[in-house]
Amino acid sequence: MRMALGLSYNGQAYSGWQSQPGGNTVQDRLEAALARFATQPVHTLCAGRTDAGVHGLMQVVHFDTPLDRAPFSWVRGTNTFLPPDIAVQWAQAVPQAFHARASATGRRYAYVLLQSSVRPSVDAGRVGWVFRPLDGAAMQQAAQCLLGEHDFTSFRASSCQSHTPVKTLRRIDISRRGLSGQPENELHGVAPCYWRFEFEGNAFLHHMIRNIMGSLVLVGQGIQPVGWMSEVLAARSRDAAAPTFSPDGLYFLGPQYDPAWGLPTRTAAYDWLP
Amino acid sequence: MRMALGLSYNGQAYSGWQSQPGGNTVQDRLEAALARFATQPVHTLCAGRTDAGVHGLMQVVHFDTPLDRAPFSWVRGTNTFLPPDIAVQWAQAVPQAFHARASATGRRYAYVLLQSSVRPSVDAGRVGWVFRPLDGAAMQQAAQCLLGEHDFTSFRASSCQSHTPVKTLRRIDISRRGLSGQPENELHGVAPCYWRFEFEGNAFLHHMIRNIMGSLVLVGQGIQPVGWMSEVLAARSRDAAAPTFSPDGLYFLGPQYDPAWGLPTRTAAYDWLP
Repeated sequence: MRMALGLSYNGQAYSGWQSQPGGNTVQDRLEAALARFATQPVHTLCAGRTDAGVHGLMQVVHFDTPLDRAPFSWVRGTNTFLPPDIAVQWAQAVPQAFHARASATGRRYAYVLLQSSVRPSVDAGRVGWVFRPLDGAAMQQAAQCLLGEHDFTSFRASSCQSHTPVKTLRRIDISRRGLSGQPENELHGVAPCYWRFEFEGNAFLHHMIRNIMGSLVLVGQGIQPVGWMSEVLAARSRDAAAPTFSPDGLYFLGPQYDPAWGLPTRTAAYDWLP
Repeated sequence: MRMALGLSYNGQAYSGWQSQPGGNTVQDRLEAALARFATQPVHTLCAGRTDAGVHGLMQVVHFDTPLDRAPFSWVRGTNTFLPPDIAVQWAQAVPQAFHARASATGRRYAYVLLQSSVRPSVDAGRVGWVFRPLDGAAMQQAAQCLLGEHDFTSFRASSCQSHTPVKTLRRIDISRRGLSGQPENELHGVAPCYWRFEFEGNAFLHHMIRNIMGSLVLVGQGIQPVGWMSEVLAARSRDAAAPTFSPDGLYFLGPQYDPAWGLPTRTAAYDWLP
């Protein structure tokens, strides 16, 4: 039978999702845990690979297994063998026609950015950081030109394996949450806040969101004008955009599927995001 | 001159606050960083020691130094030499009469507890965990007998160095925040939520909060009745209370001082707490 699992993980300790010879990836840990629970090898296929240091709040995988166990047995049993920073959140039997990657009609990501004169500490590795204040309206305006179907070559890593640089970005939402109580200081009086960027699209190129983030931050800090973003997009050259932004604040929120599959659309791990 | 610093840290990687020969403590890292910035040894004294794995959102220390630098130079300079999970949040010159420990009139802690059929993952090491649902009203009622001045021997670690087991607990607040979207499951249908326990008192014994937490959770799960808590307190014996609860969800919010000292009362790191 075919099973689908939703899982969440803190990516700080891992070399990304995709299995590697060294074995220090989320997929390696998941498949090792599944193999111990199932007492036989289990090969998984995921909805969206994540880079080293990137977190997952609802990665979805599918696999085929001869075992017929209650769904929550898969959750509890697999979690017993997973490290503390990875957990299966749900398990569900799915028809053979379901495919974690091919059935996904969209994918959602969030980037959390701390704006503060003081760098992260308690939240190190979980948030990106800027110490110069950002202009939210300028960033939102610059982001508009990215919406819709475009050739995103300017934001594509050289290592990208996608068969096409043309993707459809459906939504970029930028919101700000003020923080209380951090004293201003005489040298860098930056009002501390968290910025949250949400991205939704049919699919994403390798490093696409981190490259867009780097460019949005340049606009937000006034280093580049709003109109620069459409020039970057039109250039279709990686050299035109900003450097790749830190993986620390990037969260894969998960894939979107036709509701007919009856799969959960979020996990409790979402509530951990600031 | 005498300087006070407020700092925040993730305690997961450290053997607690207090300096040790092995050197893997928050105080060791702070003093090493201060020494590099000041180019001379700096000895600090803190408001409240934290155990291994316990976090600090506004630990306060003081130290004496011949250096006369702008306060934010201390913040920025020291942070350059601190590991990513520790950061100085503010620095301020204080009169010689100020003493980080002796001047504190109170201390505040928070304990964050995930109630869920699935263990923590993204938030591993940052929250405690229970998979059985808790009864908030029962816990709040049981906590009442702990308020005021009491001999807290039943909640005191054998290693405690306090000269007296008599402390004053001023406040215990228990609140619940529901989480969205985690699917219920057929074996363990626990509605996921975060519980937040806030403690305020003049001072605390070693392990006092973790021992109180263990006992409150037994009441919350119905394993012990509400009235059991006053029996535990009256017993004045460590054997009467529950085992010491996990350090994972414990945060030192910081000391309280007379407002006349003019020190910050919170840091932006507070906003990271669920």
